[in-house]
Amino acid sequence: MRKIVVSSLLVMLGVYQPVLAQKSITGFTDKTGTDQKQLEQKFDALLSAQRIGQTIKELSAVPHHVGSPGGKAVAENILAKYKSWGWDAKIETYQVLFPTPKTRVLEMTSPTIYKALLKEPALKEDRTSDQPADQLPTYNAWSADGDVTGEVVFVNYGLPEDYEKLESLGINVKGKIVIAKYGHSWRGIKPKVAQEHGAIGCIIYSDPKDDGFVQGDVYPKGAYKNEYGVQRGSIMDMVIYPGDPLTPNIGATENAKRLDRLEAPNLLKIPVLPISYHDAQPLLEALDGPVAPDSWRGGLPFTYHVGPGKTKVHLKVDFDWKLRPAYDVIARIKGSQFPDEWVIRGNHHDAWVNGANDPISGQAALLEEAQAIGQLVKTGWKPKRTLVYCAWDAEEPGLIGSTEWVEDHAAELQQKAVVYINSDSNGRGFLGVEGSHALETLITEISKDVEDPQTKVSVFDRAKASNTIAASSAKDKKEAMGKTTITVNAMGSGSDYSSFIQHLGIPSLDLGFGGENEGGEYHSIYDSYDDYQRFKDPTFEYGVALSKTAGRAALRMADADALPFDFRSLYKAANGYVKDLMSKTDQMRETTATENEIILANTYALANDPKEKLKIPSVKTEVPYIDFSPLQNALAELEKSTNRASEVWSKSMVDNTDHAAMNKALYRAEQQLLAPQGLPRRSWYKHTLYAPGFYTGYGVKTIPGVREAIEQRNWKEVTEQVNVVSIAILNLAVYLQKL
Amino acid sequence: MRKIVVSSLLVMLGVYQPVLAQKSITGFTDKTGTDQKQLEQKFDALLSAQRIGQTIKELSAVPHHVGSPGGKAVAENILAKYKSWGWDAKIETYQVLFPTPKTRVLEMTSPTIYKALLKEPALKEDRTSDQPADQLPTYNAWSADGDVTGEVVFVNYGLPEDYEKLESLGINVKGKIVIAKYGHSWRGIKPKVAQEHGAIGCIIYSDPKDDGFVQGDVYPKGAYKNEYGVQRGSIMDMVIYPGDPLTPNIGATENAKRLDRLEAPNLLKIPVLPISYHDAQPLLEALDGPVAPDSWRGGLPFTYHVGPGKTKVHLKVDFDWKLRPAYDVIARIKGSQFPDEWVIRGNHHDAWVNGANDPISGQAALLEEAQAIGQLVKTGWKPKRTLVYCAWDAEEPGLIGSTEWVEDHAAELQQKAVVYINSDSNGRGFLGVEGSHALETLITEISKDVEDPQTKVSVFDRAKASNTIAASSAKDKKEAMGKTTITVNAMGSGSDYSSFIQHLGIPSLDLGFGGENEGGEYHSIYDSYDDYQRFKDPTFEYGVALSKTAGRAALRMADADALPFDFRSLYKAANGYVKDLMSKTDQMRETTATENEIILANTYALANDPKEKLKIPSVKTEVPYIDFSPLQNALAELEKSTNRASEVWSKSMVDNTDHAAMNKALYRAEQQLLAPQGLPRRSWYKHTLYAPGFYTGYGVKTIPGVREAIEQRNWKEVTEQVNVVSIAILNLAVYLQKL
Repeated sequence: MRKIVVSSLLVMLGVYQPVLAQKSITGFTDKTGTDQKQLEQKFDALLSAQRIGQTIKELSAVPHHVGSPGGKAVAENILAKYKSWGWDAKIETYQVLFPTPKTRVLEMTSPTIYKALLKEPALKEDRTSDQPADQLPTYNAWSADGDVTGEVVFVNYGLPEDYEKLESLGINVKGKIVIAKYGHSWRGIKPKVAQEHGAIGCIIYSDPKDDGFVQGDVYPKGAYKNEYGVQRGSIMDMVIYPGDPLTPNIGATENAKRLDRLEAPNLLKIPVLPISYHDAQPLLEALDGPVAPDSWRGGLPFTYHVGPGKTKVHLKVDFDWKLRPAYDVIARIKGSQFPDEWVIRGNHHDAWVNGANDPISGQAALLEEAQAIGQLVKTGWKPKRTLVYCAWDAEEPGLIGSTEWVEDHAAELQQKAVVYINSDSNGRGFLGVEGSHALETLITEISKDVEDPQTKVSVFDRAKASNTIAASSAKDKKEAMGKTTITVNAMGSGSDYSSFIQHLGIPSLDLGFGGENEGGEYHSIYDSYDDYQRFKDPTFEYGVALSKTAGRAALRMADADALPFDFRSLYKAANGYVKDLMSKTDQMRETTATENEIILANTYALANDPKEKLKIPSVKTEVPYIDFSPLQNALAELEKSTNRASEVWSKSMVDNTDHAAMNKALYRAEQQLLAPQGLPRRSWYKHTLYAPGFYTGYGVKTIPGVREAIEQRNWKEVTEQVNVVSIAILNLAVYLQKL
Repeated sequence: MRKIVVSSLLVMLGVYQPVLAQKSITGFTDKTGTDQKQLEQKFDALLSAQRIGQTIKELSAVPHHVGSPGGKAVAENILAKYKSWGWDAKIETYQVLFPTPKTRVLEMTSPTIYKALLKEPALKEDRTSDQPADQLPTYNAWSADGDVTGEVVFVNYGLPEDYEKLESLGINVKGKIVIAKYGHSWRGIKPKVAQEHGAIGCIIYSDPKDDGFVQGDVYPKGAYKNEYGVQRGSIMDMVIYPGDPLTPNIGATENAKRLDRLEAPNLLKIPVLPISYHDAQPLLEALDGPVAPDSWRGGLPFTYHVGPGKTKVHLKVDFDWKLRPAYDVIARIKGSQFPDEWVIRGNHHDAWVNGANDPISGQAALLEEAQAIGQLVKTGWKPKRTLVYCAWDAEEPGLIGSTEWVEDHAAELQQKAVVYINSDSNGRGFLGVEGSHALETLITEISKDVEDPQTKVSVFDRAKASNTIAASSAKDKKEAMGKTTITVNAMGSGSDYSSFIQHLGIPSLDLGFGGENEGGEYHSIYDSYDDYQRFKDPTFEYGVALSKTAGRAALRMADADALPFDFRSLYKAANGYVKDLMSKTDQMRETTATENEIILANTYALANDPKEKLKIPSVKTEVPYIDFSPLQNALAELEKSTNRASEVWSKSMVDNTDHAAMNKALYRAEQQLLAPQGLPRRSWYKHTLYAPGFYTGYGVKTIPGVREAIEQRNWKEVTEQVNVVSIAILNLAVYLQKL
């Protein structure tokens, strides 16, 4: 499901000098480290780019969304593979709600008649595109059923600030149908905000400026979205909770207690439909009303107006709301020493259509690891801890397969799960890492050991070079060149790690390559093998690079003597977030005070063009000084205890004592950061450091309880949440003291 | 000729509080100040918005470029007006070179055939647009004659940095025909840089993203450039020298000694043609080669490529290179006390076609001042100093009418000219000021006395409000709100002040309103009365506001007891420029060192996409530490002497002595800042503080000798120019000591 956003995913830095393979590996002794390196060499030798290409071709041959015959076949195919490689594999099935369209009508009824095509044509250059009977049509899953007619308003990207701008223009969307561009937020935010503002329907389209001919030559000539391409996708309000909307907090087993669909708090009430820029053009071109603000204008060849006015559309959608079986393939190799410590690795297998890139490119790399591990086991090797490799179903509609499995096995996972390592779409370019900051050392070391297929330096060096060039100031460039660790970005949402880290506090990583694999195939029928091997990873060598990276992570976590968790990195990250919150609050206070002064001095009335009759902004409540000291005190404690924990850990390595108890404590430490009551208005999310943003979706909000309360100017809640987060941080500090 | 660029022209700031009319006026006593205010009230009462509208309609009724029957008629009309108002007026005629097109052919010969229209259609909504026999066709004056065929390369805006980017893509324009977008520099820079890089021809077009439907509804529905609109304009290399290319430094009188045209150093050697986006579209769409860099892409509905390749064009242009008479109308009212001190006010009268906005809107406001002054004289009032009101011809091809007059009368002007006050296009919005910083107090006081027609606050307050809202940070906003003086921007080029200030050192001002008058009519047949009264200044009240502002400036300078020059403001401006030079040099040093380090560490090779085969940048020479101390020492002297001069001036006012000698010294002081040898490689430009940029054109470079040497990394010249400028500043300091 995740669309790799290069700029955010690839923020990782490091020293610039030829990096020799590490002499030892953190968490291993010289002896066990040498053994592990030898194991990794054997592992690497068992990986095949060609086979990854074949797997991608095979698993993307037919459409395979959740509940489809193709989807079932893919799950069974994966199961058979695991079995053939000697894994203990099974399918765990959940019964999950998944709507498919029965009716989709969009027509402009005024000022002229236009009936939207709502169809992506098959192309002879794309051999799997011509399977209309098996393809899901273009739609947004979890749109409400609806039949509405109304005037159209163009709302830019459909974010809260866009509605503020509309208000200044004197435009209200109440009773209107909004049309929003894809981009700048997760798609589900757009209809949610539209609904909050009283819109009766929402159309989302891909503007060629963001995703089409402005970016580059269009498919099939080039990789970018052609005029008929449509981005399908979920608009479940996942920031409330992901997974089956009917079974929050519990597994969607056959007999689970289910909510009434119309009561599910993460489902919208208005109809929504995604369309191509071919279909959007007549609607947008017919709009009158004010000219759209400068930054709102897209790449279509006319002057963008906001509406409303004579342009009316009729939108009718109707869905088949059925429970469907979601097939999670779960494969195990039992740990020789610690069978009840699980190193979990996962990638989804369901796609919106053929999904060669999303998710099969990541799935194929994961399967390649599993294949190699199977071979290693056949030669007599065994992991110390249990490896659990997972192929999730129903990720696309809302991370459902993984979430139901995690909810179903929650208690056991909080006991046994050492780490969850995720991947999803993968392509040519630079390594991107998101995850738990305590794993920074682990992934930095691995990134220095894996070679970039194109340049033959380490993937660490290549990422560092990219970050150095991308940095804007000489100061930032120098810093990028000098950095010795890889940057681990905070986790938002958009792939299957969410329930592991944000619901259960299980340390997680999300790994993938990208940045040289741009295109417009995302969630369309053109996400195909033909597209992938032309534009994404033609030689499949970045598939191998992902296998090497994620495979090393799994194997090192499975075999480590002392688990390589270093909470000093987590402290640093958390401390940075708090500093950022404090400076953002100060900025907001200064900006608010100045802005109020400007408003009260009538400055807007004098600066605005009188002809435009813009609404003068209202004075906002002043930003109070916030008591951040509980967070600062908690962080001071955390700093001490993480330093102490690190000493304990090092001593344990030096003394070569039995690390079992320490390890068990280490991998469960992050659970201390959970707040039992969860975030305000979304109790499913319990991690106090990371969550997807309530109004950004995939985009992370760090220390979300405090940060979003500040953003919403809810000062009472800011203080409450400062305390909640401080307690969580103190809990971790105290917990680590006991190591 | 000048196109008002709102963002740069309208950077002016001031305190925010209701401003009462000043009690006194700087340079006047309480008594004379009260008289002057009464005079200004009478003056205001004699101004008529309706008559300004009529003048615009009358003078823009027919095309009236230099050398045309319409142009002669306009000059004679203006002369007659002055005479009817009692002015001593005459026409001074110069014989100036001005090329008009005989042949204009542009055709794509491969991969398909397209013959460019090169024609703006008449519109029924624009009553003066249908005069094809009298309209100059669409062309760039001073293109060389030429007949070339070649492959096409798209060069973005055609600036030096665009060619650096092309080089990194491995693309050379040698022997090619380049196509560049209008914008981001004065147009003449584009063919000059193309020629420097070996191009054989240059096409310039208006992209709809910068000037067309992306900006707003197109003409005649809205104000913006329609697909057929073309920007005519001069591409003389005015940054070498403006005026008649055949007579640099001397007046183009009938018997003047003339250069051979082919030897004129400010004329290009390659053919150039401007076209519409309708004509550009087939050429650009046919280009292959790499996809254009992100920021290069325009608003046409296809993927922009750079070329070269199969796309070839044939460009043929041929001109009638004739001397034509340029008619400068010069009108005088003799000063009662100081007839040999001249307050000069000017605006050009020639247009590319009908020119209702450019230049007639400014010309009509100036004539309205002249009309009112004529009436005042009839009631018995006389200015103390001589008023010289000028209507310049041949500004459009290269500031020719004003430059020839200034060169012709140079010695006399350096003796007698107290100030030159310029205007040009004028419209609805905010007051913009450029000029000599010693006049900051004068123009600040005036801006607080003139009322904004729409909001009824002072034009100072309105401009300040606009600047406050436009400032980006809370800090900048606060600063904008607190400012008590109007910002006087440094003068580049683009209108008739250039020869006064930059060649002779005569204190100058350039005044105009704008910012709420955007459109796409510039230098097209649609710059008409019909366009003007719909989109520019529908009630002509900003014409009145300009008359009030520029008229007050002329009258106060004509009547002041002690001329209101305050060189402390000039010191502050110069000191700011030097600080900026020093910090720019430091930044450049740091950036160069870091960039070289990055290049030597092979970072580009690792960060670039190997598929794109980008050229790695070369290491640059390190930036040495520059000895700026001569400038700092000179400025320290200037600070002292300007403070002292201010005390002398105040004492003279308090003592009410005879100010005549002081005044004469004051108005000639700025001439001390001239360097006799002029700027390197362009000796015509003698002012050491201000010049148009060698590679920006209209855009100013402050302390240009030093700044451009730094930008060009010519360290030897930096040191030389530091000394040249230091001497000029010291000269001024010493001069002011003698007050």
